[in-house]
Amino acid sequence: MGDVVGPVDTTRVPRTAIPATFAGLPRVDEVSQIDAGVVGIPFDTTVSYRPGARFGPNHIRASSRLLRPYNPEADAWPFATQQVADFGDMPAHPFDIPEAVDQIERGARDALERSKRLLVLGGDHSIALPVLRAIHAHHGSVAVVHFDAHLDTWEGTFNTPVQHGTPFRRASEEGLLDLEACMHIGTRGGLYGAADMDDDRALGFAVSRCEELDLTGVRGVIERLRSRVGERPVYVSVDIDVLDPAFAPGTGTPESGGLTSRELLTMLRATAGLNVVGADIVEVSPAYDHAEITGIAAAHVGYELLSSWAPALQGDAAAIRTR
Amino acid sequence: MGDVVGPVDTTRVPRTAIPATFAGLPRVDEVSQIDAGVVGIPFDTTVSYRPGARFGPNHIRASSRLLRPYNPEADAWPFATQQVADFGDMPAHPFDIPEAVDQIERGARDALERSKRLLVLGGDHSIALPVLRAIHAHHGSVAVVHFDAHLDTWEGTFNTPVQHGTPFRRASEEGLLDLEACMHIGTRGGLYGAADMDDDRALGFAVSRCEELDLTGVRGVIERLRSRVGERPVYVSVDIDVLDPAFAPGTGTPESGGLTSRELLTMLRATAGLNVVGADIVEVSPAYDHAEITGIAAAHVGYELLSSWAPALQGDAAAIRTR
Amino acid sequence: MGDVVGPVDTTRVPRTAIPATFAGLPRVDEVSQIDAGVVGIPFDTTVSYRPGARFGPNHIRASSRLLRPYNPEADAWPFATQQVADFGDMPAHPFDIPEAVDQIERGARDALERSKRLLVLGGDHSIALPVLRAIHAHHGSVAVVHFDAHLDTWEGTFNTPVQHGTPFRRASEEGLLDLEACMHIGTRGGLYGAADMDDDRALGFAVSRCEELDLTGVRGVIERLRSRVGERPVYVSVDIDVLDPAFAPGTGTPESGGLTSRELLTMLRATAGLNVVGADIVEVSPAYDHAEITGIAAAHVGYELLSSWAPALQGDAAAIRTR
Amino acid sequence: MGDVVGPVDTTRVPRTAIPATFAGLPRVDEVSQIDAGVVGIPFDTTVSYRPGARFGPNHIRASSRLLRPYNPEADAWPFATQQVADFGDMPAHPFDIPEAVDQIERGARDALERSKRLLVLGGDHSIALPVLRAIHAHHGSVAVVHFDAHLDTWEGTFNTPVQHGTPFRRASEEGLLDLEACMHIGTRGGLYGAADMDDDRALGFAVSRCEELDLTGVRGVIERLRSRVGERPVYVSVDIDVLDPAFAPGTGTPESGGLTSRELLTMLRATAGLNVVGADIVEVSPAYDHAEITGIAAAHVGYELLSSWAPALQGDAAAIRTR
Amino acid sequence: MGDVVGPVDTTRVPRTAIPATFAGLPRVDEVSQIDAGVVGIPFDTTVSYRPGARFGPNHIRASSRLLRPYNPEADAWPFATQQVADFGDMPAHPFDIPEAVDQIERGARDALERSKRLLVLGGDHSIALPVLRAIHAHHGSVAVVHFDAHLDTWEGTFNTPVQHGTPFRRASEEGLLDLEACMHIGTRGGLYGAADMDDDRALGFAVSRCEELDLTGVRGVIERLRSRVGERPVYVSVDIDVLDPAFAPGTGTPESGGLTSRELLTMLRATAGLNVVGADIVEVSPAYDHAEITGIAAAHVGYELLSSWAPALQGDAAAIRTR
Amino acid sequence: MGDVVGPVDTTRVPRTAIPATFAGLPRVDEVSQIDAGVVGIPFDTTVSYRPGARFGPNHIRASSRLLRPYNPEADAWPFATQQVADFGDMPAHPFDIPEAVDQIERGARDALERSKRLLVLGGDHSIALPVLRAIHAHHGSVAVVHFDAHLDTWEGTFNTPVQHGTPFRRASEEGLLDLEACMHIGTRGGLYGAADMDDDRALGFAVSRCEELDLTGVRGVIERLRSRVGERPVYVSVDIDVLDPAFAPGTGTPESGGLTSRELLTMLRATAGLNVVGADIVEVSPAYDHAEITGIAAAHVGYELLSSWAPALQGDAAAIRTR
Repeated sequence: MGDVVGPVDTTRVPRTAIPATFAGLPRVDEVSQIDAGVVGIPFDTTVSYRPGARFGPNHIRASSRLLRPYNPEADAWPFATQQVADFGDMPAHPFDIPEAVDQIERGARDALERSKRLLVLGGDHSIALPVLRAIHAHHGSVAVVHFDAHLDTWEGTFNTPVQHGTPFRRASEEGLLDLEACMHIGTRGGLYGAADMDDDRALGFAVSRCEELDLTGVRGVIERLRSRVGERPVYVSVDIDVLDPAFAPGTGTPESGGLTSRELLTMLRATAGLNVVGADIVEVSPAYDHAEITGIAAAHVGYELLSSWAPALQGDAAAIRTR
Repeated sequence: MGDVVGPVDTTRVPRTAIPATFAGLPRVDEVSQIDAGVVGIPFDTTVSYRPGARFGPNHIRASSRLLRPYNPEADAWPFATQQVADFGDMPAHPFDIPEAVDQIERGARDALERSKRLLVLGGDHSIALPVLRAIHAHHGSVAVVHFDAHLDTWEGTFNTPVQHGTPFRRASEEGLLDLEACMHIGTRGGLYGAADMDDDRALGFAVSRCEELDLTGVRGVIERLRSRVGERPVYVSVDIDVLDPAFAPGTGTPESGGLTSRELLTMLRATAGLNVVGADIVEVSPAYDHAEITGIAAAHVGYELLSSWAPALQGDAAAIRTR
Repeated sequence: MGDVVGPVDTTRVPRTAIPATFAGLPRVDEVSQIDAGVVGIPFDTTVSYRPGARFGPNHIRASSRLLRPYNPEADAWPFATQQVADFGDMPAHPFDIPEAVDQIERGARDALERSKRLLVLGGDHSIALPVLRAIHAHHGSVAVVHFDAHLDTWEGTFNTPVQHGTPFRRASEEGLLDLEACMHIGTRGGLYGAADMDDDRALGFAVSRCEELDLTGVRGVIERLRSRVGERPVYVSVDIDVLDPAFAPGTGTPESGGLTSRELLTMLRATAGLNVVGADIVEVSPAYDHAEITGIAAAHVGYELLSSWAPALQGDAAAIRTR
Repeated sequence: MGDVVGPVDTTRVPRTAIPATFAGLPRVDEVSQIDAGVVGIPFDTTVSYRPGARFGPNHIRASSRLLRPYNPEADAWPFATQQVADFGDMPAHPFDIPEAVDQIERGARDALERSKRLLVLGGDHSIALPVLRAIHAHHGSVAVVHFDAHLDTWEGTFNTPVQHGTPFRRASEEGLLDLEACMHIGTRGGLYGAADMDDDRALGFAVSRCEELDLTGVRGVIERLRSRVGERPVYVSVDIDVLDPAFAPGTGTPESGGLTSRELLTMLRATAGLNVVGADIVEVSPAYDHAEITGIAAAHVGYELLSSWAPALQGDAAAIRTR
Repeated sequence: MGDVVGPVDTTRVPRTAIPATFAGLPRVDEVSQIDAGVVGIPFDTTVSYRPGARFGPNHIRASSRLLRPYNPEADAWPFATQQVADFGDMPAHPFDIPEAVDQIERGARDALERSKRLLVLGGDHSIALPVLRAIHAHHGSVAVVHFDAHLDTWEGTFNTPVQHGTPFRRASEEGLLDLEACMHIGTRGGLYGAADMDDDRALGFAVSRCEELDLTGVRGVIERLRSRVGERPVYVSVDIDVLDPAFAPGTGTPESGGLTSRELLTMLRATAGLNVVGADIVEVSPAYDHAEITGIAAAHVGYELLSSWAPALQGDAAAIRTR
Repeated sequence: MGDVVGPVDTTRVPRTAIPATFAGLPRVDEVSQIDAGVVGIPFDTTVSYRPGARFGPNHIRASSRLLRPYNPEADAWPFATQQVADFGDMPAHPFDIPEAVDQIERGARDALERSKRLLVLGGDHSIALPVLRAIHAHHGSVAVVHFDAHLDTWEGTFNTPVQHGTPFRRASEEGLLDLEACMHIGTRGGLYGAADMDDDRALGFAVSRCEELDLTGVRGVIERLRSRVGERPVYVSVDIDVLDPAFAPGTGTPESGGLTSRELLTMLRATAGLNVVGADIVEVSPAYDHAEITGIAAAHVGYELLSSWAPALQGDAAAIRTR
């Protein structure tokens, strides 16, 4: 652990002068091995309504400058007991969806060669499909734990199979998902029809709608989640619109009646101990954000995810190397 | 039901190209009969602080383009099992309150000739008075279920009887309300005096202050509400400032400590089965909104109200006619 | 002219209650013949940087509610001496550029069957290509008068021929342009190389860079423009980014050092008397606008264009029919 | 002059801690005599489109904290060679236009008892009528120099004689204006008809449209202005919408193609030496402002007006008393 | 009590015309004795990230214009049964932290000569140190009840002992705090290390992290708070960032997962009956606020604090003197 | 020149995926020699009003992603005929002005060891003093060409010699400036007294106030500038508030009546051929910006400065190496 390169030390460098990486972490070319790689995919060509998630990765990074080394709720040192580094952004063809999807898959495969786990910053939700393809190559079928206002298992519109509303249908059809173990959390709002729910079930998902939160509390949902995924490899996908628009105005298809940031962070914290193999944070559209409310929520989502992956501290935290 | 004309089919037409009606629904001149008419009243002459609700109706319509045909929480098809149509906006004299009130009453009466129920988009809260007059002509005294930070049963200031803080006092004095059955929900913030509460009681209202929510939960308030209104005809009036300013910044007299959108939508959903004869959504002031947070909340309020009015689906949903 | 249906009369209906058409004009289905049709194309799939012009048409319409019947600078009655009507929006495939381009061309051809001239509200600049194809079918090669910070005669990137930076190269290659008569006005900012200018010349364009304005004044540019296009059929294409970002923040590829709105409106006014056969206003991206600065500028651009097409008033203006 | 109480000394008190008066000047109750009184009229009941100018006075005051004691362009000490003081705001009935107009007239008369000149901060433009009535009582008919996008000599709509579009028609009809000497500057945009101009002329106004600026330059307009008003008593009325929306987004009826702030300030500076007896700055609507662009422009308008009224410095500026 | 001067009567004066004091209350020079003084400290030199709290006091005042005389949840008349008055703002050296701290201490001592209690409007959190010094001179060691996302008991960075993250460490070291009785509420987010918590405990603080709220509810935290502070003199310090960024975007170091405004107001209400000797509201940074969400929350915080200090009403409320 | 590493090629990589350096240029550690280094100084401790320029460097970089390789107005290849690279940000003590000034001077000296010229991105204007000290060590006294609304030769307030209003007084006193050759351009707004101008002259400055622009045009100012500085080494300092607030809302001490971006860019372009040895762009405060208007203006300022330093192209531009 003495070799882990952490974020810039903000007790010596003002936060406003730290590098433009996630949490001021090193770039991948500055470290020799990587436990968890943060990678941006500034691609939003498949959105159905408000675009702009192409600017998401840098917005989340800018909003991550306030993160600090020790996470007391999780009792974790996310940047000290594992090597986290920032891959920067992956190019993706802005006008050709199939080509972009291939580029992203290749990029994710390459990144997984270097890093055990990936934390992907979207971009729109379509990026989950190629990322899951790359993950599948390493881990086989995974249980997707999907925080989102929407199901994203729709068939798709306009004869376009890969869209931001379809990644988990496509992934399920391709055998990338464990059909016994996927779960939506925070679902709400209208559907195209009641059959959407039947399809969704057949594609491998249980649903914890927002209503359930009011009945069982966060803890009830957590229990259900842990029991559903068990020991399986898990991919956590966080569409920031799972938060209510008050907590995440900067997104493309907002739905009223969503989660609070406290609910979301508590649930993410509870994924510690699961066999999480990767994660994404998608649909952050900065043009609709205000005062980085959305960006900061997304940065904290990343912080909880990275904390949940961090091994326990061995020895003396004071020895952690900052820059 | 085969004759119901629904919203434009957004699986074929991009949401950005749908008509400027509520949820892309037909205009009243495009249908032959109407179960529920949406009508805007862009009038805000009586507000005491921040103006701008005159721009509310079109803002709510613009924010309603993301609504979808099936409401799973309510198990309702709000646009398919009843004919909903948009009346557009009703003109009202911007400089002469009594004249405007008369115009609105006449407009509401005319609309009620064509449509069984009205969903009125304000405008400021004063519009509830003439709408209640028109409703009274059809239904007699009604139980007002009033979601609002404020009582709106004040005597009024500046010698001006019709203001956005007085509609329910005036309505009660005129005999439009059922004195045993009205109820405020979400009330909070300061009053002019303790006597305000006595007056309010005498005018027919029970009060569920925000504090109560923390004690009984949403379900407790719902039970109290249903028990208070019983079988009576109900008018639901939603001042968007019942939401906390975080959830509805775009309003004129915001008060901290309000409802979340989830609480509000859950309570509205629980009005299904009541004998609701009409409703309004008022005090949306777009100049203070951000990223349509407020507009989207208001659109969802309308969606839940329309869902609660929708008959159960008979036969095959696939037969629903879209445009 | 007695048959012309004008905008709603805002001395009787508050501006906040007028219909959601351009300037409150009638919809095309409300009139029997059309001299000038306003049509929206909410399509922005080809933009290279900030997206959002898909919301442009409705934003421009909302910002057009302040337009009035008589244009004194032009001494024109744009809504009274010609029938202007609003076609609403044309759907276009959001994920398939060639298909969208075909749809737009078909839509423009259909609209031109009904309306002598079209004023197209974009959408991104790629829409000019299919519109020019439709115009060419009626008028043959045209002189494009192109107000823009950028040349938009680039070859294109990512192997994608139709983009918002390429419409006039494609149009020129297809023979839609008069190679002796096209002209850019307001060009500024960086290029990919000096050869861009050579290509541009070969494609049929003269350039009036912003610098020229400071030397010759608006009048100098106007004279050069009128002399270049002569009697030819002219298509006026206004990318709102021709304005400085101070005057048009709501756009996708802003460049400092641009035109003022006064300069632009004066130059557009000077196209009166030219043989203008159609026009567009593109690249209005509302998510970046503030207080409708950009929308209002675009609405005034439309007003000047429509004014420049309006025949002189014959007889009594008082006889103009409003609604 | 040794008795003049100036603004708080911002070389000793941070600007963020100065009092909430215009430029940190004393309140009227803190001084014994007043040469120029600043008074707010937070009234906007008569606007036809975007409301909110009721919040104008405090917005302008907040934006005036950066003003400094010496105006080099004018070579004037606006706060040192005359006693300027802030009257605070005048209440006006928000729901009864005639009553409000009477209140404002009484308030203005009272203020004129104490102060030689008034600088009125609106509020909407209707406040100019009662202010002119009060001014007329002291000075007889005046030449109005009117900076505005609009004529404001309209007949009025909705049977409401006093509106923000009618003050100068009413004033002219009442004999408050010198029919040989009034002048509009910065006029642009659409009218209801060509007859509007004829009426305007008959009501006493010459017009310098924005177009003229491009032909004669600021200096040409200044010469025309000075020649028109001559030695007469002058009232300067500045509707902030005379500026282009880029320079003044925070207003209610914006029109593209307006003045720059530099043009406006230069023209106001040129009123020095005229016999100005009072002035107003109206139609600042903060809800539409951004970063105080509009408020700062309005504060500088006030600064130039006060500078133009300031006597030349006699003796030693160092003796100026600050607080 | 007949001598208490209350806010301006907003049933006669429009809220937009009330003075720029907190809640329209009298200035200190307008009353003869003061029970509770509101004083602004526009100082933000010690912030580590987003600055701007120097504009906090006036922003909170502007947002307090909607407060009304009677607080029904508290059954209190905050402005009628005690004399509340506004001291305006206290200057503090913007570039010299030790000098500013001395100025603030002197200013607070002076204010405490005139007023029994102070409600301080920050400014950044460093101002709590000099205020506590002044309070200590009157009351000895106090129990700080500290609502904040952060501990603010850090050692400090950059060799600068007084910063916005250090006031309670310094205060504890100076003996200003009761080491048995201080408490943080709403704490969340990352730390520099686990030792931060040990230090914090040694400095006198118990911690109620946000997580606790979900387990015990607001009532559990209230009970813990009341039991910890007992009869001791209490200083309540509210860093507005204790609210989630959705409820308080206008602040400098936002952390996701925070309190709702309802939770905060309920907890503050529960301090009634404690021996509160002073309070502050800090870290409101208006440049990041939207539609005064943050300002209004802060104004309500002040309202609840003042309500909790108000004696019960003796006799007839109708006799309360307004202006 | 074949060795010059340029920006990322945006015809292959979407602009949204380019690195977070200025214009996507290489970092200094990616190149072996540097002709022009861009370096950020996120320091704003000395501002007198609105803070926030500490976030300026990254904001300008984010806004520079639209810059392209060839500048046609300047006929220059700013990134191809000289090696430009980004140093990232220089830390500076946020709470100790003298220490920060020393750090900045050391940082600038170090950077000048590696790079012939520096383009400094502020930060507030105080950073010009230590940068000029470092420059002086290389070049001796320089002629400062200073674009700013303000003189910045003030004595300073609060006994604090280094502030954002004093850098050029201090620099002149220290002998860093050529007393015959400095010049302010764009000066406007109020002063503390007429003596400010006398002091300014004695400190080495001529002044071209905004008024002059209206008399002589941009060309007149350019001639005067070139004649004043002659062959001397020149330092160009651009305070973004030289632009009118409409063009640069995102700044700390805005003054109405400023330059347009076109005027500023034209004047900067005219510094080509002068012996410019360094430059800065300061006072960009993103919290007050909208849609990056200010950031984009600042990025274009940097682009023109770098263009003016670029040697003429030798040989084939096609050989330019991109990444």
